Amino acid sequence: MTSPLKDRACIAGIGETEYSRGGPNSERSLLSLQLEAATRAIADAGLTNKDVDAILPSQYGRPAEELAANLGVEELRYAATVFMGGASPVACLQTAAMAIAVGVATNVLIVTGFNFYSSRRVQALSGVSTAPLAWIANDYYVPHGVVAPAQWYSLIARRHMHEFGTTCEQLGAVAVAMRKHAQLNDRALMHGKALTLEDYLASPILFGPYRLLDCCLETDGAAAIVVTAAERAGDARQKPVFLSGVATGHPYPADDITNRKDIFEIGLTHAAPRALAMAGVEHKEIDFAQIYDCFTFEAIQQIEEMGFCRRGEGGAFVEGGRIELGGELPVNTHGGLLSEAHTLGMNHITEAVRQLRGEGGARQVKDARVGLVTGWGDFGDGSIAILRN
Amino acid sequence: MTSPLKDRACIAGIGETEYSRGGPNSERSLLSLQLEAATRAIADAGLTNKDVDAILPSQYGRPAEELAANLGVEELRYAATVFMGGASPVACLQTAAMAIAVGVATNVLIVTGFNFYSSRRVQALSGVSTAPLAWIANDYYVPHGVVAPAQWYSLIARRHMHEFGTTCEQLGAVAVAMRKHAQLNDRALMHGKALTLEDYLASPILFGPYRLLDCCLETDGAAAIVVTAAERAGDARQKPVFLSGVATGHPYPADDITNRKDIFEIGLTHAAPRALAMAGVEHKEIDFAQIYDCFTFEAIQQIEEMGFCRRGEGGAFVEGGRIELGGELPVNTHGGLLSEAHTLGMNHITEAVRQLRGEGGARQVKDARVGLVTGWGDFGDGSIAILRN
Repeated sequence: MTSPLKDRACIAGIGETEYSRGGPNSERSLLSLQLEAATRAIADAGLTNKDVDAILPSQYGRPAEELAANLGVEELRYAATVFMGGASPVACLQTAAMAIAVGVATNVLIVTGFNFYSSRRVQALSGVSTAPLAWIANDYYVPHGVVAPAQWYSLIARRHMHEFGTTCEQLGAVAVAMRKHAQLNDRALMHGKALTLEDYLASPILFGPYRLLDCCLETDGAAAIVVTAAERAGDARQKPVFLSGVATGHPYPADDITNRKDIFEIGLTHAAPRALAMAGVEHKEIDFAQIYDCFTFEAIQQIEEMGFCRRGEGGAFVEGGRIELGGELPVNTHGGLLSEAHTLGMNHITEAVRQLRGEGGARQVKDARVGLVTGWGDFGDGSIAILRN
Repeated sequence: MTSPLKDRACIAGIGETEYSRGGPNSERSLLSLQLEAATRAIADAGLTNKDVDAILPSQYGRPAEELAANLGVEELRYAATVFMGGASPVACLQTAAMAIAVGVATNVLIVTGFNFYSSRRVQALSGVSTAPLAWIANDYYVPHGVVAPAQWYSLIARRHMHEFGTTCEQLGAVAVAMRKHAQLNDRALMHGKALTLEDYLASPILFGPYRLLDCCLETDGAAAIVVTAAERAGDARQKPVFLSGVATGHPYPADDITNRKDIFEIGLTHAAPRALAMAGVEHKEIDFAQIYDCFTFEAIQQIEEMGFCRRGEGGAFVEGGRIELGGELPVNTHGGLLSEAHTLGMNHITEAVRQLRGEGGARQVKDARVGLVTGWGDFGDGSIAILRN
């Protein structure tokens, strides 16, 4: 049966601030960054702020009510937050499509943003939240000194190396590919800073096997998209990008990495087959993949768990330029979190939209028709969207 | 056009813990309370924990991932949080119906819970959140000493008294009615503690016009419901309660009470007409209303803004037993937040379900067919559901 969500919504607008680490843009408030990205996305969609009737605020961002007040959104019909860490932006595509499909809302604004570089950093934080990070990490991980995502996930990466012989050089191939793509993207923080495998191997080990250069950037900035009903695509200012498939998923148990029967199982293991089936798309039809790259190994793991190769073969898959532009499956054509910026993964969506609009410039994937975007969040929650033009 | 949400979902199960202030039940963890309520709701629906495939965790509750792990929910297909304070549980009915209508999920667990009495109290809290309470209150209200909901809303109540001549006795009529209903409900904390208007007027003023007895209880406990697809209602263990209409709304601007062109405008002003239109129900068809009663005046304001009477006439509306059992519009037949317990309003939903199942016992509204439930949250966000049997 065809899903009522398939091709019912499209991404009509995208907007981003400058991404920075230090400088005047880093001294701006989170609200100001989010409003700039939101305003750009709304304008890009050919809409006015008043046309927005739903806002899905970001886990680390300002509330929907405050964004609405500052944008002049007088009729806010829907707002909800998906607390899946870096899986949230792609997961929000699902909730946006739901709201649109049932007529609860028409133009849904999704906006992430933070000033992690100049202000509060990624860490376990308590407070009013339903984020695993805020509760579970504080209760069960922090007391043992396991305070940072790089620590949590290094356990899985190390196990993968043990089980399948995955090498440091293969992790490095991911870092090098992302950096190579960033050289074609002047928005990327690592633009102009080329990286060789030797540079990678010389970088200090933080939490083995993770070196400094296995870890994504922390940056200041904001990114936004506007999702609208597919039947309005004809009026759109930009070439619409349709949401053909979308799903979210969780490993089991989702609250504890060390207690999983299958330590390599992630949310995407569950979500990817659902999204691909919804879109009616096979792996070989995917022209590019923007994969949440909080760390290098996570890109390898997601490639495996989505079924682009078998488990254990991901290390070999990312070598030999296969995930670079011109390769079998170009991954993170913008440079990803590793080399463009950290926007909780919203920049993976904006880049996918650019590619499907044919606005990729020097890094355009030739004849891109179908793209895939993933998200990865707290303890391995996963989200995936299949987009097409 | 008929909404795709109308009568597509039903509440199949309800579950609650004991409500307490002090005693052994107050020393339990939040997780334990939430799991007890959830387990009861799932059993009440005739389901097993594994049948749950979506969880909408509460603003003040534990994360979906942790609840799933502890319940044994292996396939969690959807989770999102609505940050509308006390408007959240009823708002979650909307999100649950959306997930069901588009086939993302089948059995949605919604569970609130807190130990506000024995642990953390209701207050402005910073942290990882998209709640206005956590950000806006801290940034703009707390620095001026305006730290508590009773303070925020007392401003509106006072203005209403000034504009329309609403009296303390009319506020008291709400408190007395709720307490009267609580005498018919042995789950209510104020069961066995009758209240007269004289008692009410003798209670100390906290933030004028609000006296102690204008304020709802703070309690420990948890409450849960299971929402399922209407087409499965035939298999249900209990008489299903259908969700005929549902909407959420926000005042404008939602982030600041004092800056509103219309200080009496609330989320419900926007949401109520939408929900009533979706259900195709008129005011006179409503057999009872469970209205979020964080304070007495808020019940009066919501009655007005929903259109049960004109603005300014709410004070008179609540007098003379009209909102008591046997009256024109029985309100909060369980005793409400004022006299049963504070579960962020989830107990208003469970009570509505009991009434529509005909399980109200001594407080049963005769021949109840259509009931209304409201939620009220941070700075006046609103939610409303029209339920029928």
